[in-house]
Amino acid sequence: MSKKRNLYLNTIPVDEAREKYLKAVSELLTMPAERIPVTESLGRVTMSAVYARYSSPLFNASAMDGIAVSAKDTEGATETSPVILQENMYTVVDTGDPVHNPYDAVIMAEDIVETDDGVRITSSAAPWQHIRPIGEDIVAGEMILPGSHKIRAIDIGVLLSAGILEIDVVKKPDVAIFPTGTEIIEPGEEIKEGSILESNSRMFENMVTTMGGNGHRFPPIKDDYDEILSKVSDAADKYDMVIINAGSSAGTEDYTVHVLRELGEVIVHGVAIKPGKPVILAMVKNKPVIGLPGYPVSAYIGFENFVAPLLSIMGRRNEAVNEQIEAHISKRIVSSLKHKEYVRVKVGKVGDKFVAAPLARGAGAAMSLVRADGFCVIEQSSEGVEAGEKVKIELYRNKNEVENTIVIIGSHDLILDITADMMPGKYNNMFVSSTHVGSMGGLMSLKRGEAHMAPIHLLDEETGQYNVPYVKRLFKEPMAIIKGVNRIQGIMVKKGNPLGIKGIEDLENPDVRYVNRQRGAGTRVLLDYKLKQLGMDSEKINGYDREMATHMAVAAAVASESADAGMGVLSAARAMGLDFIEVAYEEYDFAAPVRFLELPHIKAFTDIIKSPEFKKELDRLGGYTSDASGRIVLV
Amino acid sequence: MSKKRNLYLNTIPVDEAREKYLKAVSELLTMPAERIPVTESLGRVTMSAVYARYSSPLFNASAMDGIAVSAKDTEGATETSPVILQENMYTVVDTGDPVHNPYDAVIMAEDIVETDDGVRITSSAAPWQHIRPIGEDIVAGEMILPGSHKIRAIDIGVLLSAGILEIDVVKKPDVAIFPTGTEIIEPGEEIKEGSILESNSRMFENMVTTMGGNGHRFPPIKDDYDEILSKVSDAADKYDMVIINAGSSAGTEDYTVHVLRELGEVIVHGVAIKPGKPVILAMVKNKPVIGLPGYPVSAYIGFENFVAPLLSIMGRRNEAVNEQIEAHISKRIVSSLKHKEYVRVKVGKVGDKFVAAPLARGAGAAMSLVRADGFCVIEQSSEGVEAGEKVKIELYRNKNEVENTIVIIGSHDLILDITADMMPGKYNNMFVSSTHVGSMGGLMSLKRGEAHMAPIHLLDEETGQYNVPYVKRLFKEPMAIIKGVNRIQGIMVKKGNPLGIKGIEDLENPDVRYVNRQRGAGTRVLLDYKLKQLGMDSEKINGYDREMATHMAVAAAVASESADAGMGVLSAARAMGLDFIEVAYEEYDFAAPVRFLELPHIKAFTDIIKSPEFKKELDRLGGYTSDASGRIVLV
Repeated sequence: MSKKRNLYLNTIPVDEAREKYLKAVSELLTMPAERIPVTESLGRVTMSAVYARYSSPLFNASAMDGIAVSAKDTEGATETSPVILQENMYTVVDTGDPVHNPYDAVIMAEDIVETDDGVRITSSAAPWQHIRPIGEDIVAGEMILPGSHKIRAIDIGVLLSAGILEIDVVKKPDVAIFPTGTEIIEPGEEIKEGSILESNSRMFENMVTTMGGNGHRFPPIKDDYDEILSKVSDAADKYDMVIINAGSSAGTEDYTVHVLRELGEVIVHGVAIKPGKPVILAMVKNKPVIGLPGYPVSAYIGFENFVAPLLSIMGRRNEAVNEQIEAHISKRIVSSLKHKEYVRVKVGKVGDKFVAAPLARGAGAAMSLVRADGFCVIEQSSEGVEAGEKVKIELYRNKNEVENTIVIIGSHDLILDITADMMPGKYNNMFVSSTHVGSMGGLMSLKRGEAHMAPIHLLDEETGQYNVPYVKRLFKEPMAIIKGVNRIQGIMVKKGNPLGIKGIEDLENPDVRYVNRQRGAGTRVLLDYKLKQLGMDSEKINGYDREMATHMAVAAAVASESADAGMGVLSAARAMGLDFIEVAYEEYDFAAPVRFLELPHIKAFTDIIKSPEFKKELDRLGGYTSDASGRIVLV
Repeated sequence: MSKKRNLYLNTIPVDEAREKYLKAVSELLTMPAERIPVTESLGRVTMSAVYARYSSPLFNASAMDGIAVSAKDTEGATETSPVILQENMYTVVDTGDPVHNPYDAVIMAEDIVETDDGVRITSSAAPWQHIRPIGEDIVAGEMILPGSHKIRAIDIGVLLSAGILEIDVVKKPDVAIFPTGTEIIEPGEEIKEGSILESNSRMFENMVTTMGGNGHRFPPIKDDYDEILSKVSDAADKYDMVIINAGSSAGTEDYTVHVLRELGEVIVHGVAIKPGKPVILAMVKNKPVIGLPGYPVSAYIGFENFVAPLLSIMGRRNEAVNEQIEAHISKRIVSSLKHKEYVRVKVGKVGDKFVAAPLARGAGAAMSLVRADGFCVIEQSSEGVEAGEKVKIELYRNKNEVENTIVIIGSHDLILDITADMMPGKYNNMFVSSTHVGSMGGLMSLKRGEAHMAPIHLLDEETGQYNVPYVKRLFKEPMAIIKGVNRIQGIMVKKGNPLGIKGIEDLENPDVRYVNRQRGAGTRVLLDYKLKQLGMDSEKINGYDREMATHMAVAAAVASESADAGMGVLSAARAMGLDFIEVAYEEYDFAAPVRFLELPHIKAFTDIIKSPEFKKELDRLGGYTSDASGRIVLV
């Protein structure tokens, strides 16, 4: 217990931290100009206003196919007294051709008749008709683009036609990125227990790219004070900004803050934000240097809050902040007054309201970033929100995509992943979002109007019937069951079944460390039903109280050293290389209000689970039958 | 008149054309997979679902800094009867360290006390507390990303930590782009009269990039049947799609459609869309080949309607369509029943409504694309919309940016360009949009609630006072004048003043071809005032009826051969190299409702016109004084 730990008890609020830091580094954020060919300027930002060199059109040009004439030669022409123009009184022009003195008007090809004497016209031409005067579109000297403008494809076309071949743009900020930590290994290296695959730096590199900068990622540095010091010192000479990842918490090998104090000035250490507290905001050799925490979610949020605003100023990117929407939260969130908290949420539109389902809250839960559609920000001054309460969501997915997403909340099965995969491929711009809270949890969400469908597998102990009795009991409005699949449930055990488990009865053996599903999960209902049938006592099962939220999590626990058995579906057992003892087939269906059945994304979903491709996937996974898939049963 | 013209009288509606074409080419749009390193996959699209190779965490890991213990060793520990753990009963762990058998719980460093006998704890540990079980975040075999998913920075982080180093993505569609036309020259080449600077192909190239494809732009092809045929035939062998630009209208040298008929099949020729009618949708050697018109706006709209949907399918990019908003149109738009029309608009938010001001409608007006925030689509079945009517706008600028834009409608002056340039540089995410309809037009827009401010220079003939009398007469609500600049107005004449014009009086000379401003423009009011003072008759001025919408357009006309004199400001004369005969100083101010004065972007605007940088710009332009700039006068 003699290792040295950093202490940073006095964390400051996020906005205050950012403001303090921005003020300290504000002089360091001006990027110089860089002159590049216009043809390579897509997405770059103009350094200053750009003015046209040439006018467009470059000359008085015909706007039509026809003949150029002198308007006064056509005066008096009518249907009854046409005018004949001799060959020296006009010239044939195509659209875009120049129109010269003495000609000052164009007559359309459709309005003339060729005769042996010349061209006959039956109405006079007004001066300058059908002529695009010089400079109609662009006048030489006119401003084409303002400064600090992000160049689009259409801008490139106009710049070139205004005679601009090269353009001054803001240099891209060059950002050095250092992963640190002795336990860190590179993807592809041999994995030993205790090693952590380095991936944050790659995420940062690409976040920098997305923000219009150049990320320069270096190989991991070991926890060595002198090495970190020399690398960071060199990088501060060469790059516009430096990011150091991990080594910023109060852990035992966290040198970063000491290194930065030696090299320069630490402006902020520790911010009241969750996740993401151990952020370091410093300045070394007149360059901003930022230390970000190691957990992926903390790293992401730290970047968004402290690196992104700097890059935005350096690159002069006036991107709007992410879109905000109001949504109803589907679960209670409790938060502390000690920090501002970022809760990842899945968002969908059910009826006319947006609903947001909180995802895993751990800072290590990188997948929650991938799955999330945005953040629900709980301000430092709030103790949390109640289920159903309206909250503000910062979307980082397109709102239109969110509106085209079918919201599924309930029991988990791999077929949800399969439909989520097939949906956007088969139906353009339609998506599946699924949140896993067990069957009963799903029905409750459906009742609160927070989901389109609830996947359930609930055995009614009295009738022995699946799903329909539960839906009947719980809902007043007209409901439907969209038939899903029959799937085999069983006991997952280690490869080779070392404890010789044959069925539910063997779970009473105290040497069998069981891992259970959470209350309300259909698998748990099935276990309880079987225990009752067999007259067994749940208290005698070692691990009955240890709960996991998905089949896969149970399978992973059994595959590790921490458990010997757990109930779940065959596909989960196969995915983790486990043996499987069959217990029963159950009906896994989708409950949905009748009023949603006609929604295009629900119809698309029903079509998918009826399709031969879907059945082929089920065969590949094994343990399913699907004769009724997609059939609709009104409850 | 013997040149051969194409005829394509039977145009079909846009949606029908697109559907017909998509049906014909649907088999040709499947791109193969390409295997690339995950670290280079930003923005690419997954070919199929991606499953985790490793779990994360890879092992049962400590979630805290502290000690790993066996929970049963801690049973019964309380404040009053603490338990001492000997050295062989625990191990020190940092966050992320593995936790091994027999240890199954972690106690936080804060909750232990080191003593000489061992570590003292005062409460028992629950099994698995502060341990992140293997697979808590990602379970091996679990789906990480669905197919057809556009890869983001956060996805790259998660893929790497799940052990995925390479990934199958959809190959980028390779698109060959051929500019054609004998009159076409490359940017940088010597410009002769009649030559047209080629820029559409560069716009297409970058639009293809933006849509996730690779554009391959070829040098312009002359109007030569055989050359076009051989180039297109080769390209259809090598690329996934071919675009031919221009050569698709009914002009005299339009070989494209004939070439495509010889090489393959023309599915559609001519679409009821304005601008953009002469589109060719064809198929050559099982590749889609699209002919797009030459005018820049037609080219852009043709691309968006016919090329973009194909690229979207080929690249499996499920991008949502551009955002739609409802806005009030600020000017009447008349449209024909013969086609669907795309009118470019500037959009702003004034009070609580979006307002859309139509921009130049010519297909050649490429600058209207740069200036526009979106399109107002007038359906084929509509004859147009009235001013103030609600219309649907397809935005292609960010809505948040639109909301932070100050909407200026009124008289034009170069200082509007200068503020538009300075605004986003000095104030993050704030923009200026200006539409030029003359002073009276601006006040009318202000009255209809379609603008924040109207720049005006209106001389009251009775009082000799500028601006205030007009605003007083026209508005009931409390109004303010934000003082702008005093600027010199004068007569612009060709360099050297070949006609010897000395003042307004000389405009009666019939050899002087005058070019006027539109009715309601302050410059026109000034001219009329001067004519009245001098007792002159406007009918005697040659060209009094020829109207231009801006100072720069008048200057461009005088610089060309089509006019000899026009009234305007010194800066416009200088920009076009003209001589300038002073007439009078006038007051160019900004009228605004008092209730807008506190808006942040109006305040930013006022600060800018007060700033020394702004005054420096005025000195550079010449012809301005600015002692009162930014002062607010309540009317």
